Amino acid sequence: MATAPWKQLLLNALESNGHLKHSSFFQLATIGTNGRPSNRTVVFRGFQDNTDKIQINTDGRSRKIEELKHCSFGEICWYFTDSWEQFRINGEIDIIDGSNPSPLKLQFLMQQREKSWFSSSLRSRLQYLGFNPGFPSLSEETQPEISLDPSTGPVDAFYLLVLDPDQVDYLNLKSNQRLIFKSSVSATAEKRWTVERVNP
Amino acid sequence: MATAPWKQLLLNALESNGHLKHSSFFQLATIGTNGRPSNRTVVFRGFQDNTDKIQINTDGRSRKIEELKHCSFGEICWYFTDSWEQFRINGEIDIIDGSNPSPLKLQFLMQQREKSWFSSSLRSRLQYLGFNPGFPSLSEETQPEISLDPSTGPVDAFYLLVLDPDQVDYLNLKSNQRLIFKSSVSATAEKRWTVERVNP
Repeated sequence: MATAPWKQLLLNALESNGHLKHSSFFQLATIGTNGRPSNRTVVFRGFQDNTDKIQINTDGRSRKIEELKHCSFGEICWYFTDSWEQFRINGEIDIIDGSNPSPLKLQFLMQQREKSWFSSSLRSRLQYLGFNPGFPSLSEETQPEISLDPSTGPVDAFYLLVLDPDQVDYLNLKSNQRLIFKSSVSATAEKRWTVERVNP
Repeated sequence: MATAPWKQLLLNALESNGHLKHSSFFQLATIGTNGRPSNRTVVFRGFQDNTDKIQINTDGRSRKIEELKHCSFGEICWYFTDSWEQFRINGEIDIIDGSNPSPLKLQFLMQQREKSWFSSSLRSRLQYLGFNPGFPSLSEETQPEISLDPSTGPVDAFYLLVLDPDQVDYLNLKSNQRLIFKSSVSATAEKRWTVERVNP
């Protein structure tokens, strides 16, 4: 598979901003179940193997899961604060929970989910055992002490999201350059990218 | 008018992150004309007078204007990288161009737009005189030298967006606190806010 032409730009940005912890954070927009836009910060969890698909871990009980079941498209806005570069990455999002129904993809997806789980810190993993996110928290209610065996596999609430980019809008505010990458799928089901330079 | 209870939290975040230039940048999600989410970084241009309405300057030729004419709702995701606070601010967005049709609000809105224009740097103002953003840029085409008299009022392409928040989801990753503020409009047309503490 050919590497997407924008991927190297993104890898460069990740490297040149790597000294900043927040360089792996970006904003993911989805469509709310009420039809309004919805937007939150999430953490980049790498590309899926050697593809250009972007991985995000999330709690299956969070609102975005319900939203993505209604409309599976999302747009990432990733601004790099040191290099002044912005990537707007639009694509469809696959939800990978513990019971993915597609038997053909099943084993591969389960492995991806497990890999993401074990790549997370123990502290991150513990969050998925906590109270239901977004639910009212009662001040009397204190989270019971939770322990988790580091060798335990992904818990039910741990979901992996995989965004498959089909358009990337790149803006460099230092060079004032803007590039739009668009993909199309060829007759042989291969993804092809074109790039156009546009006014910033 | 009573101050919205989340506004002080936001003012505090702006102050404690004020040493970072990018602390005034946030991501604004809208709904694309194709029904997919759309997300980009924009700059906070202050509150409208003493209200809790959030101002954003934009180019009237940018895609978000067309999007907002189809669906006027937006969600801001504003992550403060030093204090680890996130504000998700959802609300309806008013578009204020040079020819706003509402005669009652006209004068006030024109003043707001003019005020925003003159608060921008000369360099920012010059952008509105440049080539059409998002249009193909021809390498042979060089931007003609543009000059702008600092006393000249807003040009046609200069639009002011005003987001009127009706829900704010606040998350503090240091204290692990999450608060959801919701507004309702009373019989006397006064906006009232309730707050609920929820699980992060």
